[in-house]
Amino acid sequence: MLIQMKVNDFLEELASNSPAPGGGSISALAGSLGGALAAMVCRLTIGNSKYAEVQSEVEAILTEADQLRGELARCVDADTEAFNKVMDAYKLPKATDEEKAARSKAIQQAMQHAANLPLGVAESSLKVLKLAGRVLSIGNSNAASDAAVAGLMAHAGLHGALYNVKINLGSIKDEAYITATQAKVKEIIEQDNKLHAELLATAAKVIG
Amino acid sequence: MLIQMKVNDFLEELASNSPAPGGGSISALAGSLGGALAAMVCRLTIGNSKYAEVQSEVEAILTEADQLRGELARCVDADTEAFNKVMDAYKLPKATDEEKAARSKAIQQAMQHAANLPLGVAESSLKVLKLAGRVLSIGNSNAASDAAVAGLMAHAGLHGALYNVKINLGSIKDEAYITATQAKVKEIIEQDNKLHAELLATAAKVIG
Repeated sequence: MLIQMKVNDFLEELASNSPAPGGGSISALAGSLGGALAAMVCRLTIGNSKYAEVQSEVEAILTEADQLRGELARCVDADTEAFNKVMDAYKLPKATDEEKAARSKAIQQAMQHAANLPLGVAESSLKVLKLAGRVLSIGNSNAASDAAVAGLMAHAGLHGALYNVKINLGSIKDEAYITATQAKVKEIIEQDNKLHAELLATAAKVIG
Repeated sequence: MLIQMKVNDFLEELASNSPAPGGGSISALAGSLGGALAAMVCRLTIGNSKYAEVQSEVEAILTEADQLRGELARCVDADTEAFNKVMDAYKLPKATDEEKAARSKAIQQAMQHAANLPLGVAESSLKVLKLAGRVLSIGNSNAASDAAVAGLMAHAGLHGALYNVKINLGSIKDEAYITATQAKVKEIIEQDNKLHAELLATAAKVIG
């Protein structure tokens, strides 16, 4: 498993001439790093009497951030597996018409899975961005730059994941699936635009 | 060392209630992930006859990307060490006037180091962003989303690092240092704005 590798070995494997792991896994990792940082800011806030009024809200943010961090970390490996399944489908035999049809169906199924996966990463990263922005506003101000970085990581992971959705959509034939997915992508981008602008404005106010 | 930890353990440690590692280390990691992904795209381009015309340029990008990935990975630990040195300086004795002066000097020195480090991370991440944009334009188009994600990671690492520069500047008293550093920050942001916009435009053209 990728997330069981040492960070340095993971970087080495990433830089290698094997296409997997690639940008999809790194986008999930960025989202997970954002979730972990947001959780840290929560932990540095909880129990501090200066922030007594927001304790219960920060506790709720922490629970969600920890969960999203775990989910997104699992997607680091799941994205690479989804990519490998597409590659496996392309290797299926195509000698007879029957084999051709079965291969084509397998490719389409694997492609949809390989598009759904980063779509989920983008949705989870959007949630991390929202939590990071909130904890930047109400959490421990000594950790403001950490909360801001959490939001930047989530924003980068979200857009990276959407590139992976789009590149897979290019090979998918199901028009209804394409239309529905494009609508979801558009909605995620709109929400990200708003939350990202808010994060930058809050960070400029708090950090400078 | 942080980069010798397993990815999953690193995420766990990051989310803990200890302020280090924090956003500074994660910004360096994001830049390093960008460097590694850019290097992968180079390796998937070199030796492919379709890209014969750009071989020597891509080889040069690869050399630089590998070097930046290593440099930025070392900054993951160096940033946390720099933060810990600031904390150590604050713990110095302050009973006598002499001790107070020595402590204040040690804090200022540690703070400048803790600001210089992410400034270097931002500069290296800017280089990664430039390389990622170039390899997105001329490299293997099958890895276009990987090159785009490499650029997004570098851009996020750069801004994350600059938040860490700014937050440390707030505790530094040397006006000449502050002015010089703010000028560098401004220049990095200007170059990033340009390169990031170019990356997004190229990605929109190539990926959709």
